[in-house]
Amino acid sequence: MCGKCDYTIHGRSFHYGWDNTFPPAQHVAPGSTVFFECHDSSGGQLTAASTVADVSTLDFGKINPVTGPIFVDGAEPGDALKVTIDSFEPSGFGWTANIPGFGLLADQFTDPALTLWRYDPKTLEPSAFGSHGRVPLKPFAGTIGVAPAEPGHHSVVPPRRVGGNLDIRDLSAGTVLYLPIEVAGALFSVGDTHAAQGDGEVCGTAIESPMNVTLKLDLVKGANLKMPRFTTAGPVTRHLDAKGYEVTTGVGPDLMTGARQAVADMVELLAGRYNMNPVDAYMLVSTCGDLRISEIVDMPNWVVSFYFPRVVLE
Amino acid sequence: MCGKCDYTIHGRSFHYGWDNTFPPAQHVAPGSTVFFECHDSSGGQLTAASTVADVSTLDFGKINPVTGPIFVDGAEPGDALKVTIDSFEPSGFGWTANIPGFGLLADQFTDPALTLWRYDPKTLEPSAFGSHGRVPLKPFAGTIGVAPAEPGHHSVVPPRRVGGNLDIRDLSAGTVLYLPIEVAGALFSVGDTHAAQGDGEVCGTAIESPMNVTLKLDLVKGANLKMPRFTTAGPVTRHLDAKGYEVTTGVGPDLMTGARQAVADMVELLAGRYNMNPVDAYMLVSTCGDLRISEIVDMPNWVVSFYFPRVVLE
Repeated sequence: MCGKCDYTIHGRSFHYGWDNTFPPAQHVAPGSTVFFECHDSSGGQLTAASTVADVSTLDFGKINPVTGPIFVDGAEPGDALKVTIDSFEPSGFGWTANIPGFGLLADQFTDPALTLWRYDPKTLEPSAFGSHGRVPLKPFAGTIGVAPAEPGHHSVVPPRRVGGNLDIRDLSAGTVLYLPIEVAGALFSVGDTHAAQGDGEVCGTAIESPMNVTLKLDLVKGANLKMPRFTTAGPVTRHLDAKGYEVTTGVGPDLMTGARQAVADMVELLAGRYNMNPVDAYMLVSTCGDLRISEIVDMPNWVVSFYFPRVVLE
Repeated sequence: MCGKCDYTIHGRSFHYGWDNTFPPAQHVAPGSTVFFECHDSSGGQLTAASTVADVSTLDFGKINPVTGPIFVDGAEPGDALKVTIDSFEPSGFGWTANIPGFGLLADQFTDPALTLWRYDPKTLEPSAFGSHGRVPLKPFAGTIGVAPAEPGHHSVVPPRRVGGNLDIRDLSAGTVLYLPIEVAGALFSVGDTHAAQGDGEVCGTAIESPMNVTLKLDLVKGANLKMPRFTTAGPVTRHLDAKGYEVTTGVGPDLMTGARQAVADMVELLAGRYNMNPVDAYMLVSTCGDLRISEIVDMPNWVVSFYFPRVVLE
């Protein structure tokens, strides 16, 4: 477990979706360090024994269980929750799926697909993607947030101003995240841990992997943040950028269309060059390829670029 | 000049906008290395002696002169032009402006503003931004492309499938760019050189800087590219990522709105923390901050993040 932690929140203390009437799993003082047992986004429905048939029968009512909520003493609407992400205790198992109806190219990839991953949780050496290559790992929490003020139960799928399913690849060890608080106590929860993901999470899933998380919860009184923000402790791409990138682009007046074009072209490029099933290439690039906006000012056409790290396949 | 070059294209061989009837400045064989004298995007209208008043009187009919066009022997529609970007010969002078009506936050920054830069063209040491900090440099060509098939004269401002004003920060020395060719001879031109820019070019300008460019032009017959693509020789952010990033986010159902939110929040953060005029912060982040799409699949809300490299101000 965690020697320096003030509290352990066990995996049985989870909830589906967000609702500010969920009873706290724990009250903590600001400055507390907390150890969370986190579930993967399937809530254990997919395991090392799963096959692609299990993707079709996923129960979406049980997606993204998050561990919590934590009531932080003294937290009030208008404050920010300062979350110092200390460390991850990865499990060594992960999965990536193409889930029909979900993902940036859902119209092009309509059949379910599943990739299973094994990695060394101690060394975090790059994990093999079949015989094709190896994906560098950087664990982070896909879903991390506080309860929204709006009454009622809210789906876990969309991220919000208060965080949630942000799927920001750099919410990894050493990062300090600031979340706008909307309810007394903040009601913080975390889960949906990933062993690796590219910016965009383009196929809809990352290397989904159950993991324990240690983090510290603090308050910044009266911060009045509009949106989440964060500070990384150091560089964010050096674990995979050594050999540079293969880059495709989408040029045109709509950012979403440009992103779809760039990703589709990369899938086609890699599938052709490495003799890969296109849906495999689609899942692979979701775990390590980055969507960037190269220019957003040269009216009326913008450039969205998709960066695939060459180290993965070369 | 350039010892290894087969041709020199002087700065007087320039054109405004794109038109496939422009007469070639030079015919070259595939495999030729060419030295281009390039203009900055103002075409010399802004100089080291300029003041903010000169921004208001810019002649937009003389924006982005590009040097060329080059007719590549044997190039046909459907081929790709392979452009190996060899090196840049920077001038040491640069400018960044807020031009009213132009830029991601044009509605918020309505007054003209101008920043002048001096840098060492030999060492390319980070360039001072007033007393606030120093911006790491990485020269590249903002406008690089071939003539469109569509008849007539086309504005230089929007990039297209055939390239043009792509403003892709990583089209720097060592990168290999592939452009779809639409007309016989390709008709390649280059210009609008930048000493530094972040992904997005959010204020509408980078460190605009006249520079000479050496590159090699080759053909890939029958490549049938849909859009430009490129390969970088190595990492693309190590010149500025050593101290990590300050990151703001925009969460919601529209990527453009998310990008505007993230950039506006970063401008507010830096202006407040470093006692900077907001328009100065806006111009600064345009030269070094990166727009990334963190997730684009968690329906209906996407996350756009703006990464500001801490090394610039710390």
